Amino acid sequence: MATGFFDGLEPVRFVGADAREPYGYRFYDKDRVVLGKRLEDHLRLAVCYWHSFCWPGTDPFGGETFQRAWMAAGDPMAQARLKADVAFEMFDLLGLPFFTFHDRDIAPEGATLAESNANVNAIADVFEGKMADSGTRLLWGTANLFSNRRYMAGAATNPDPEVFAYAAAQVKTALDVTHRLGGANYVLWGGREGYETLLNTDLKRELDQLGRFLALVVEYKHRIGFTGTILIEPKPQEPTKHQYDFDVATVYGFLKAYGLEAEVKVNIEQGHAILAGHSFEHELALAHALGIFGSVDMNRNDYQSGWDTDQFAMNVPELALAYREILKGGGFTTGGTNFDAKLRRQSLDAVDLIQAHVGSADAIARGLLAAAAMIEDGRLQATADARYAGWDRPENAAILSGERSLEDLAERVSRDRLEPQPVSGRQEYLESLVNLFV
Amino acid sequence: MATGFFDGLEPVRFVGADAREPYGYRFYDKDRVVLGKRLEDHLRLAVCYWHSFCWPGTDPFGGETFQRAWMAAGDPMAQARLKADVAFEMFDLLGLPFFTFHDRDIAPEGATLAESNANVNAIADVFEGKMADSGTRLLWGTANLFSNRRYMAGAATNPDPEVFAYAAAQVKTALDVTHRLGGANYVLWGGREGYETLLNTDLKRELDQLGRFLALVVEYKHRIGFTGTILIEPKPQEPTKHQYDFDVATVYGFLKAYGLEAEVKVNIEQGHAILAGHSFEHELALAHALGIFGSVDMNRNDYQSGWDTDQFAMNVPELALAYREILKGGGFTTGGTNFDAKLRRQSLDAVDLIQAHVGSADAIARGLLAAAAMIEDGRLQATADARYAGWDRPENAAILSGERSLEDLAERVSRDRLEPQPVSGRQEYLESLVNLFV
Amino acid sequence: MATGFFDGLEPVRFVGADAREPYGYRFYDKDRVVLGKRLEDHLRLAVCYWHSFCWPGTDPFGGETFQRAWMAAGDPMAQARLKADVAFEMFDLLGLPFFTFHDRDIAPEGATLAESNANVNAIADVFEGKMADSGTRLLWGTANLFSNRRYMAGAATNPDPEVFAYAAAQVKTALDVTHRLGGANYVLWGGREGYETLLNTDLKRELDQLGRFLALVVEYKHRIGFTGTILIEPKPQEPTKHQYDFDVATVYGFLKAYGLEAEVKVNIEQGHAILAGHSFEHELALAHALGIFGSVDMNRNDYQSGWDTDQFAMNVPELALAYREILKGGGFTTGGTNFDAKLRRQSLDAVDLIQAHVGSADAIARGLLAAAAMIEDGRLQATADARYAGWDRPENAAILSGERSLEDLAERVSRDRLEPQPVSGRQEYLESLVNLFV
Amino acid sequence: MATGFFDGLEPVRFVGADAREPYGYRFYDKDRVVLGKRLEDHLRLAVCYWHSFCWPGTDPFGGETFQRAWMAAGDPMAQARLKADVAFEMFDLLGLPFFTFHDRDIAPEGATLAESNANVNAIADVFEGKMADSGTRLLWGTANLFSNRRYMAGAATNPDPEVFAYAAAQVKTALDVTHRLGGANYVLWGGREGYETLLNTDLKRELDQLGRFLALVVEYKHRIGFTGTILIEPKPQEPTKHQYDFDVATVYGFLKAYGLEAEVKVNIEQGHAILAGHSFEHELALAHALGIFGSVDMNRNDYQSGWDTDQFAMNVPELALAYREILKGGGFTTGGTNFDAKLRRQSLDAVDLIQAHVGSADAIARGLLAAAAMIEDGRLQATADARYAGWDRPENAAILSGERSLEDLAERVSRDRLEPQPVSGRQEYLESLVNLFV
Repeated sequence: MATGFFDGLEPVRFVGADAREPYGYRFYDKDRVVLGKRLEDHLRLAVCYWHSFCWPGTDPFGGETFQRAWMAAGDPMAQARLKADVAFEMFDLLGLPFFTFHDRDIAPEGATLAESNANVNAIADVFEGKMADSGTRLLWGTANLFSNRRYMAGAATNPDPEVFAYAAAQVKTALDVTHRLGGANYVLWGGREGYETLLNTDLKRELDQLGRFLALVVEYKHRIGFTGTILIEPKPQEPTKHQYDFDVATVYGFLKAYGLEAEVKVNIEQGHAILAGHSFEHELALAHALGIFGSVDMNRNDYQSGWDTDQFAMNVPELALAYREILKGGGFTTGGTNFDAKLRRQSLDAVDLIQAHVGSADAIARGLLAAAAMIEDGRLQATADARYAGWDRPENAAILSGERSLEDLAERVSRDRLEPQPVSGRQEYLESLVNLFV
Repeated sequence: MATGFFDGLEPVRFVGADAREPYGYRFYDKDRVVLGKRLEDHLRLAVCYWHSFCWPGTDPFGGETFQRAWMAAGDPMAQARLKADVAFEMFDLLGLPFFTFHDRDIAPEGATLAESNANVNAIADVFEGKMADSGTRLLWGTANLFSNRRYMAGAATNPDPEVFAYAAAQVKTALDVTHRLGGANYVLWGGREGYETLLNTDLKRELDQLGRFLALVVEYKHRIGFTGTILIEPKPQEPTKHQYDFDVATVYGFLKAYGLEAEVKVNIEQGHAILAGHSFEHELALAHALGIFGSVDMNRNDYQSGWDTDQFAMNVPELALAYREILKGGGFTTGGTNFDAKLRRQSLDAVDLIQAHVGSADAIARGLLAAAAMIEDGRLQATADARYAGWDRPENAAILSGERSLEDLAERVSRDRLEPQPVSGRQEYLESLVNLFV
Repeated sequence: MATGFFDGLEPVRFVGADAREPYGYRFYDKDRVVLGKRLEDHLRLAVCYWHSFCWPGTDPFGGETFQRAWMAAGDPMAQARLKADVAFEMFDLLGLPFFTFHDRDIAPEGATLAESNANVNAIADVFEGKMADSGTRLLWGTANLFSNRRYMAGAATNPDPEVFAYAAAQVKTALDVTHRLGGANYVLWGGREGYETLLNTDLKRELDQLGRFLALVVEYKHRIGFTGTILIEPKPQEPTKHQYDFDVATVYGFLKAYGLEAEVKVNIEQGHAILAGHSFEHELALAHALGIFGSVDMNRNDYQSGWDTDQFAMNVPELALAYREILKGGGFTTGGTNFDAKLRRQSLDAVDLIQAHVGSADAIARGLLAAAAMIEDGRLQATADARYAGWDRPENAAILSGERSLEDLAERVSRDRLEPQPVSGRQEYLESLVNLFV
Repeated sequence: MATGFFDGLEPVRFVGADAREPYGYRFYDKDRVVLGKRLEDHLRLAVCYWHSFCWPGTDPFGGETFQRAWMAAGDPMAQARLKADVAFEMFDLLGLPFFTFHDRDIAPEGATLAESNANVNAIADVFEGKMADSGTRLLWGTANLFSNRRYMAGAATNPDPEVFAYAAAQVKTALDVTHRLGGANYVLWGGREGYETLLNTDLKRELDQLGRFLALVVEYKHRIGFTGTILIEPKPQEPTKHQYDFDVATVYGFLKAYGLEAEVKVNIEQGHAILAGHSFEHELALAHALGIFGSVDMNRNDYQSGWDTDQFAMNVPELALAYREILKGGGFTTGGTNFDAKLRRQSLDAVDLIQAHVGSADAIARGLLAAAAMIEDGRLQATADARYAGWDRPENAAILSGERSLEDLAERVSRDRLEPQPVSGRQEYLESLVNLFV
């Protein structure tokens, strides 16, 4: 390889389920057709820039462990170019179709916003060439509105309107670049959109600011002809004590309040779902039910750590249940499966970076294959459907269609002496059925 | 006392802050005027029927500890009348203005719904007399749609439409009785409205059922001329693994989805807020911001127990922050402060029941007095307001009013070379300021 | 079947991994030999009495859902006999080798302790016959020292010494019966051994009481010649706010404090480990490291519910990691795998009871088979061992054996200019390696 | 002030409870005598170096916000001297008696350990002069064995024995310096002593390493004549997924296992107690019961954030319960109250640093005064004591002293027909009693 970072590592190939080495795809056979679609097109896997190439291995109690060449002192733009070289070398090694980035991941912040924007555009030029060469596509871009101290009290929700303006200007460039690179989506994550203490916060005012900000982005998207989806990524807290985009249901209510529910969808992260007290599949199913499902940030949060652990997803039965919800809802359109996962900080080597993506891609592929098998089998769905069969009878359908009043129903219970008897929900049977497929 | 249950206990009187015995109100001086209103009218305290008179001291690992006379074997309606006698004796001892109940708290379930309804109405007759005598008022009534096994898979969200109908019929009677007794509100708590496993659940369908059910109640309320408020009580889980009314934001989105946001408000419970991962004051502030604040179920959840511990609220600084949000939003209209708290199961004696309410009422009163003092002092609010002062400038107000585009803002940042600098949020100063008042 | 409860259900047989129905063991092939031992002898699966036959489907917000014939009104001892009949019918259907019980599970509490003891002994007589007939063995017995209100403030740790005496007397009978039935172990679970509030608690005194109680049991065991293991089951809270047997490490310290570490081991429950903030495998590994590993209560706690959910274990990758720790430590001696799991309360039917055990037994068997395969493969262990290889060098072994002082080590660092460099921990590689086997 | 950092800020003085500005001690009247001791001598308040002078305001999603002069680029030792100047200026402004530090807080890491040690010693020289001038004393010193990447897999528990040696050498210097500066204690916090995954960990071996390391420190302490206390600080996780010093009970078991329970005590942090699932007062009471109470790291963890939030303690009722346990156990000997708290990262100004310490010192003082008042009142203790009175009777005392067997007790229950009846635990009364004092 040109940079030498991955020296000695072979491109990752499909090796089949019987292979006894974890380096190699045992299940991620990208051209395998399942439910009428190639596996690659089902999953739309994307490598993220920040965890793999920008995070140096720090944690709240320790300094960097990775010491990558491109993180060392030196000319920031030269280092950004080296980082881009390494990144595309990794995309090629892995053979995955997409990548994702924040503006500040790919290019250094300059002394002014104009300089920062120029940096971003310069690296985007680099990307254009590399994307053409490699075929790697952009799943989505986003702007980092949370790391710089100017955003410490929020970007759109900052008490200072100049910060709002600054954030808007930054998003404009990030969206422009995403558009130029053919991004399939544009994501907003409001890590600082929330509050630390109500003692200094006007919650209502900040929600209105956030609503207006999002509308500005949507309006601009249409003006420039960006046809990708605008996505909000829910998260309950961290870094901000309370974040306004707490979970899928909260984002839905927010979108409804500001009339944006037809314009914006959600990018659901496994770890954020867990931190909000939900299962991942709950958030997926709810987003489908509310019509706002967009994309997925795939990782695994330690259930027993109360912060974003962003581990590589490896538990196949859990992944199968998640992809079952995705498939039931129709699968991805513009969205995909973004690896929002980072190495453990002790995993120092280049091969760890590859192995982690391979291992997780394989677990994800097994999950999707199992989900597809469940759907093809049909028993899970049939068992669930049978529970609701009574609602198809005309007198019951009439309830939902608004043709019955409370008095009507009371009268019916009395007249027919209704004494409905519960029937088994069969949860353990259904869980055992799932285990046939995972 | 007629029943003898409270023999030896004196009516609880205001004794002043210097009293050294906890039996007696040291701060709950009901006629004291603060911010232009009597303390009693600010707090609108209500005693709940279920915890005080129906819960026998059981927990998941142990049987009843209380062994109240009215819980023993015997004629159920006679026992219900004895329970009513004891309840009103307690209301009189405490001198608090309101009470609250579920239909099944006050009267036993019969062999049929007709019989159950008759039982409820018979006890309502008893209540009418006692309320007239004592002046105690009804803050709200509600229907228990979660204890009976017919509701194990939901009431409104049950896969069986006959259960939906049965629940509707039950609510009709509960709302009728609430109306007859002059209830200021009617509450719905969806303890079984949710799901145990997605494997057997059609989430979208169940949400539609729930939306229709709520609409039925609202329509009926208007038909009978009930002018009280319809309230939903959010809770994230327990008993159901996932409940649809997770928190205030979720309920708001649900109301918007079904067009009910002008008709229904929320009854916020401290313990449920905590279980949803929010502070109590967050839920209060958010409900005000969204225009759906209704009433409060006051208790205290152990932050380190993952279920509804329903303890009596005793921490004054926390209560002060909660009432500050309530007062900032304008205070209660039809709502009030319902003691949704139960004795610890080792607190066996009649005097424990009185002492718990007295101690918590006093802590609540201290909380409200402290909140009022903070508001009169004005520094907290002034510090918060000053942070947002920039938004009053015309060029910034124009952003929120929709007169600026993303391009405008980007242009402004560039033209004015904006480099907004962060200013201190002063959290510790504000927390220290709060400590002047608690 | 004689009782008719399981009418229509066939005995569960080994059907092989390719079977497409979940009724039947696909992996639990009891005579299959792995790592030199039959699968049945590895797992030593036990059905518990309380969840399967005593719990009526209640939860804190709802009444019973199951309505089993033996839970209905009637002569308590006749019902206990019917329950025993059903239980042994289920043991036979499942073909599992062990069962477990509390004294109060199998026989009703009488008006006096003497009567209660007589009831327990009478059912034990019934058991003796049935065990001889069926070959089912007793993994362990235990005494219920938590349900009756006399124990609300603790059994051994009660402020009232007469409660301590009563508990001791109850344990004596339970241990006698366990001994008579050939129990392989005797368990103590201290659900009420802890406190609700420090305001009324003398923690030191209660710990001493608990230490003395345990010593009494150990002394008695030796006097009667019971050769089974005495086991403590750790749990952090619920029902008691804080329980003294919080986790494995706490129990170890407690045993050391009272000189009982050679006499008592731990029965580790998956759900209790989770509630204490640990992974199940942590508790297993720690118990082995401390020399107090005894037995396992197998279930699955919802990671997002803060109470004991006691679900049937179904996640194979998690089970594999647990059994890997058990096997690494040498496997079970007197202990085994007790199903401390209950049906979801909506799983009403007899077949649900069977299906749940079958599905979980199979997941457990897959877990053990995967763990055995990992051990046979050897790469996981070899990778871990290689990390510590430096400690085998004499100069480093001398550190651990106490032959070096702090000054020696400082001198060595200085003399040899030590600058140790970190090496990759390879976590994602190891996790991917695990996924080869599950 | 010489450095100018605190320009414009007055020394903090005692202003009395009626003062209406939070700048000034309203309750921390250091010479006030309570329970026979000056308030300053009760609390032994210490300012910590790391949070106040070393943490730049970063969090996992954002860069530094504080931008202190001494954190800027420049000669590291010159910056360390400037930091020392600012620190002692703050100690003087606050008028608090103690401070605490890690070796790496006060002086930069050099190219070799020898250079690092020289840096530490050079700053210790500076400290000696300043301490003599100001009268500020050292509560404890400690070594940072967690930030540098060499410790990423543990210090004492590292798989590489050279890291163990390096850590030992570093502790030697830190202990030497602590001794030289008259430190009252020496602390070990094992942030990396634990594991990330059991897949690459030998838990038993690592525990043995940790035991040996601690013994080395204890042996060395005696050799050099250091008479301060060696303290371990428990914490359950973060940064390491699982840490061996999980909580007080775990540390106790560890000390017993390695025979160090008479040599080492615990430094209990409020936030770490919370993260372990305990109340702060539980950990304090348990440490006293086990005879290992040493010192306190005072802060406040957000109950709803799953990481170390290290906020300044402000809730007086909670503080009162904590100091009640400290006072009940006899108060501090060598230990004290260390402010292990940091500003919120938006609190940018020098005055925030002062205000935070003042506000929290005052809340702490109120807590201790309330605790003392409870003790002087006596009713809380008397109520608790009365519950255990039965144990003073000879026949019951004989149980605890080992003069009764299980058979004796069973015989007594039978003979005396014991049917012990529960009595009220009066929790709400006791909580109301507490509210008289806070």
